[in-house]
Amino acid sequence: MKYSVIVIGDELLIGQVTDTNSGWIAREVSPLGWEASSVKVVADDAGEIKLAMDQAFAVTDVVLMTGGLGPTKDDITKATLCEYFGGEMIYDEVTAQNVLEVVNRRGIKLNEYTRMQAMVPSSCRVIQNEVGTAPFMWFERDGKVAVSMPGVPHEMRTMMQREVIPQLSRRFPDGMHVEHRTLMVSGIIESALAMKLDDFENSLPESLHLAYLPNEGIIRLRLDGRHSDAVVLKNQLDKAVAQLHALLGNLIMCDGDVPLAAILGNELRKQGLTMASAESCTGGNIAHEITRIAGSSEYFTGSVTCYDTKVKINQLGVPQEVVDEYTVVSQPVVEQMVQGVCDLLGCDCSVATSGVAGPGGGTEETPVGTVWMAAKAGNRVVSQVKRFPGDRDRVINRATTEAMLLLLNLLQEE
Amino acid sequence: MKYSVIVIGDELLIGQVTDTNSGWIAREVSPLGWEASSVKVVADDAGEIKLAMDQAFAVTDVVLMTGGLGPTKDDITKATLCEYFGGEMIYDEVTAQNVLEVVNRRGIKLNEYTRMQAMVPSSCRVIQNEVGTAPFMWFERDGKVAVSMPGVPHEMRTMMQREVIPQLSRRFPDGMHVEHRTLMVSGIIESALAMKLDDFENSLPESLHLAYLPNEGIIRLRLDGRHSDAVVLKNQLDKAVAQLHALLGNLIMCDGDVPLAAILGNELRKQGLTMASAESCTGGNIAHEITRIAGSSEYFTGSVTCYDTKVKINQLGVPQEVVDEYTVVSQPVVEQMVQGVCDLLGCDCSVATSGVAGPGGGTEETPVGTVWMAAKAGNRVVSQVKRFPGDRDRVINRATTEAMLLLLNLLQEE
Repeated sequence: MKYSVIVIGDELLIGQVTDTNSGWIAREVSPLGWEASSVKVVADDAGEIKLAMDQAFAVTDVVLMTGGLGPTKDDITKATLCEYFGGEMIYDEVTAQNVLEVVNRRGIKLNEYTRMQAMVPSSCRVIQNEVGTAPFMWFERDGKVAVSMPGVPHEMRTMMQREVIPQLSRRFPDGMHVEHRTLMVSGIIESALAMKLDDFENSLPESLHLAYLPNEGIIRLRLDGRHSDAVVLKNQLDKAVAQLHALLGNLIMCDGDVPLAAILGNELRKQGLTMASAESCTGGNIAHEITRIAGSSEYFTGSVTCYDTKVKINQLGVPQEVVDEYTVVSQPVVEQMVQGVCDLLGCDCSVATSGVAGPGGGTEETPVGTVWMAAKAGNRVVSQVKRFPGDRDRVINRATTEAMLLLLNLLQEE
Repeated sequence: MKYSVIVIGDELLIGQVTDTNSGWIAREVSPLGWEASSVKVVADDAGEIKLAMDQAFAVTDVVLMTGGLGPTKDDITKATLCEYFGGEMIYDEVTAQNVLEVVNRRGIKLNEYTRMQAMVPSSCRVIQNEVGTAPFMWFERDGKVAVSMPGVPHEMRTMMQREVIPQLSRRFPDGMHVEHRTLMVSGIIESALAMKLDDFENSLPESLHLAYLPNEGIIRLRLDGRHSDAVVLKNQLDKAVAQLHALLGNLIMCDGDVPLAAILGNELRKQGLTMASAESCTGGNIAHEITRIAGSSEYFTGSVTCYDTKVKINQLGVPQEVVDEYTVVSQPVVEQMVQGVCDLLGCDCSVATSGVAGPGGGTEETPVGTVWMAAKAGNRVVSQVKRFPGDRDRVINRATTEAMLLLLNLLQEE
């Protein structure tokens, strides 16, 4: 089944908020064989919303809408849908009861704005929002369905899983199967990878399609499959993945769309090792990326962010003379940092970073973007220096990725 | 001037990548008075791209497109635009020279895929990409302009600033002025804030509009202004902002769209204090958020992520008996953590977190989402416990925000 998404909100169009709802929906419904035809982001404007509805219904039978259902004046989705689908705004007692329960559970008082969340178009069927005050609304016309959902991610996600997806599945049974497979590749640039895979790509069956997603030194290689027969599709994908492994060997870090921090975590768990990080320019981001992975407490001992040089010296044992002779952004400093954090926290492996994330702090010898990184596993220590382009966030993110890759490669060499 | 954005890429529609380009563009061109009419995300599919072009040209004279310009087979934007605007694909020598220079600067070899980046539609004018191999393309038809740009954020951003924005400004001089003002509000829920501002909102002039953007315990209150006279607009906004300050008092944390970490940093700088973090369940994210702010090394000493309990005990001085009696997710533990990290790193203030981010690890007494937080400023220590809804990322982000707010409020009480 194909569906369209309409994301409503001025805050998205002026770039103050980034839409993550449409991506979440896509990932959630993809196993059902549902594909987004397009995502359109529009303003809190009745004309724009109606135009987007017309365009969406012209190409798909299902339109999922998020946003514009808040209690404040800038949110006009409900009134607009009432105009679009007809009927009038009515005060719905069942919805009012639900709003009251949600508000009570949160331990706050019902005020007039929140009370008015129970006003809904008479042309819709309400799906009660069990985790928020904005009702979900289901509209039908000429065999086509539009579902309007709040933009608050956890409300949309919770009720989409509990009610919207099951109800849409029953309403639109679909014969096509869609399946994606992703491989994580490192150590090669995109165009070189594409040349290596030229013959492979040309030999793929009609039902498969290859996509390249390079990001910060890692390429996600994704096979998209679509076929009426789930077994045939699975066999085609299995064969293609096996061919990719034969062609790319150890350029493939792992099967599946797995964050680097989880690949590193799996390797540590496999080898029964613990790790720590000692972070200057990455400022805690390596620890953050690693601890975003559920279960990371099994192998992640902790970290020290040593933003002030005295922390490098006092806690991580970097000698003052080394700092004086080589500066803090240097090979001897990061090599002592990986040693020092292992000694301090009592663990087997570590990574360290020291660099200039910018925009200030650069010198002719050590320009903005320069980052020294080290990794330690057992008695082996490796280090490297890179100069990353881009702004502060980008330097921090690249250094985070490259430092984790450095340790991963060291662990896999064993 | 109104413009439309078309974002091209299967990876966006299946939710593997989130579009951040359209938001960046909006923020960048907003001071020029340019407003996005809509953003449409479409597949790497010729039919979808052409349909989006037709729809965009129907409402705006300018269409900005990103994505689908990579060297690999899945990228078809160039060929599609050649069909749409006419002409044929030609090998452009100037572009070829630019591609060669970019590749040489990166120290990599030119391969056949990269060489073919110099193939462009004869109907376009190329804007040379000084930081990448995919050419920017400017198309004109019936007084309307489409600019196709690569999806790689730093390439798009660099050349948009250097060439695309200046060239569009000259091509479409525009008389309207647009200005936004944002105030950061905390300590009140959205609907209560809306009630407080009811009369204020109703009294706003036609040219001003108020929007509420709640996120993780903080509400950004944004005034959008649009007027032909820049001075009149500025005066209207100044007056409205002053009224908001009079109405909301110290619910307003600061003027401007400033991240909480920067508000906290400014307060520390103003008071001449330094800080550290001691993080268990937030795993380094507080340190990361604080160090994302340029210049944070002036007040941020460092942090200890104490994922393993032994780090809490050995480095932060939490007594084993306290852990045994109260468990690690408890008030005495976080209160010792803020003290311990100040002692260890030698700084004036600190925050600490200990909680259950989930999905595992919860108990009946301490369910998933429970987080104890403490803040220390001088001799004063405060602590609180919250139970956050949502998944692991959300618990980590909420705890990060609430811990920083705890310290900020403590500092502002003085």
